[in-house]
Amino acid sequence: MTWFAETLYPNVRQSFAIEQVLYQGRSDFQDVTVFKTKDFGRMLVLDGVVQTTERDEFVYHEMLTHLPLFAHGGVRRVLIIGGGDGGILEEVLKHPVERVVMVEIDAKVIEVSREWLPTICGRAFEDPRAEVVVADGAEFVAETTERFDLIIVDSSDPIGPAEILFAVPFYENCRRCLNPGGAMVVQSGVPFLQGEEAANTYRRLAQVYPHAGFYVAPVPTYYGGFMALGWGGFLDLKASAAAAAPRIAAAGLALHYYNAAIHAGAFALPEYLNARIG
Amino acid sequence: MTWFAETLYPNVRQSFAIEQVLYQGRSDFQDVTVFKTKDFGRMLVLDGVVQTTERDEFVYHEMLTHLPLFAHGGVRRVLIIGGGDGGILEEVLKHPVERVVMVEIDAKVIEVSREWLPTICGRAFEDPRAEVVVADGAEFVAETTERFDLIIVDSSDPIGPAEILFAVPFYENCRRCLNPGGAMVVQSGVPFLQGEEAANTYRRLAQVYPHAGFYVAPVPTYYGGFMALGWGGFLDLKASAAAAAPRIAAAGLALHYYNAAIHAGAFALPEYLNARIG
Repeated sequence: MTWFAETLYPNVRQSFAIEQVLYQGRSDFQDVTVFKTKDFGRMLVLDGVVQTTERDEFVYHEMLTHLPLFAHGGVRRVLIIGGGDGGILEEVLKHPVERVVMVEIDAKVIEVSREWLPTICGRAFEDPRAEVVVADGAEFVAETTERFDLIIVDSSDPIGPAEILFAVPFYENCRRCLNPGGAMVVQSGVPFLQGEEAANTYRRLAQVYPHAGFYVAPVPTYYGGFMALGWGGFLDLKASAAAAAPRIAAAGLALHYYNAAIHAGAFALPEYLNARIG
Repeated sequence: MTWFAETLYPNVRQSFAIEQVLYQGRSDFQDVTVFKTKDFGRMLVLDGVVQTTERDEFVYHEMLTHLPLFAHGGVRRVLIIGGGDGGILEEVLKHPVERVVMVEIDAKVIEVSREWLPTICGRAFEDPRAEVVVADGAEFVAETTERFDLIIVDSSDPIGPAEILFAVPFYENCRRCLNPGGAMVVQSGVPFLQGEEAANTYRRLAQVYPHAGFYVAPVPTYYGGFMALGWGGFLDLKASAAAAAPRIAAAGLALHYYNAAIHAGAFALPEYLNARIG
């Protein structure tokens, strides 16, 4: 049996039994690998770190899309920063949005995902509402004149190419790109193991936006309990559960993690996370 | 660097860098090991499966005790089945209970925990309100004439010595041992990876009690996202958040996971778990 051991943390590891290496290569930015695992289906790995798997991608992708979309209730234009595997794009396009711009820095991740992870991106890349821009997301929000109702930051961790997506200037530029009533959501790591990163993200979002906070969801292959999803905006996501519930019911999406109860419950933060942002 | 790799699942593993093996032995029931890990403090392992660590034990122990205790509001007598490491006992004794009986089948687990895991059990075993019985928990509830307000089942997984604690006759005997208004809570595994076990537990609890369900919490070293905590009783735990909130505030315990928001939010189940119990 061949195993892949993730190298994200020095002293704790998750490992997956591998049936086959489907793709292995190097882009301008990072090592890109797709494994066929025994129990988690196909898995995308960048620089040794698990990004998504067919088996559990739904937790992360549903929570980073449907929660803010149903909270807002009238999103027409969405900007995705990162998200090269197309999982976020596919979930966003389940809503009656007019236009989705996805800005991914690494064309290789898109190309490999379209070829090897079709169950994650579905036919999202062919949707006429979607435009894919291969560019630096931080530069894009600094320069674009477009405005969006929702910005979703689906980045890798704040080391390497994604570091700039966790800084105040990036959040300020995102704010500039938001329509009134808009919001942004960002993956903020696993606070049980990456507590400093969560604290920094919260402080910066709260400095830039009138409303900011976290909601949480445990993604099995993001090791260590809850993942923190940071949010900031002109809309109070935390107070959105009652407004979202009838929208969720009316949409009738067939989902595997998110529902109206989860929408409300996800804003209940454990004390160890409250202590980081108190 | 020495690593310990958990052997719970055939195709996915968590591994921990080890500084030292503090204890290794075999009881009448199982292999018992205590490691000093690099990042999770001391760790108790039974038959190759992680039971608890100093670093993350608070998630599991707080959620299996404070939630039902504050939901009930007047618990005087508690029965713990299993829980040989003393972590549940210590948390229960933070409440003004009169008597706690802990029935653990494996004396070696108690002995090893008292010697090597003092930060988990604290001084709970010396508390005059606590009585420790070394016996089979299933036999105990079949025979005792004592009555309890709360029964907490802190067992290992339903293979090996704990199998009998997941069967209908055990739940029926627990019901017989409950005072009016009482409830029981049981660890029910990680449903993302052990979905069949969660489904069975729910079906059996719902067959025995007027109220039954799950609440959830992600324990970092119980790999795979949410752990499901099953409950059944004469009290509707799911409807208890409003009553619990002032009790939580009045008690003023210094905790690391549980709080009033978590109490309410923990009953929000992801769709993949709802699908198992629907």
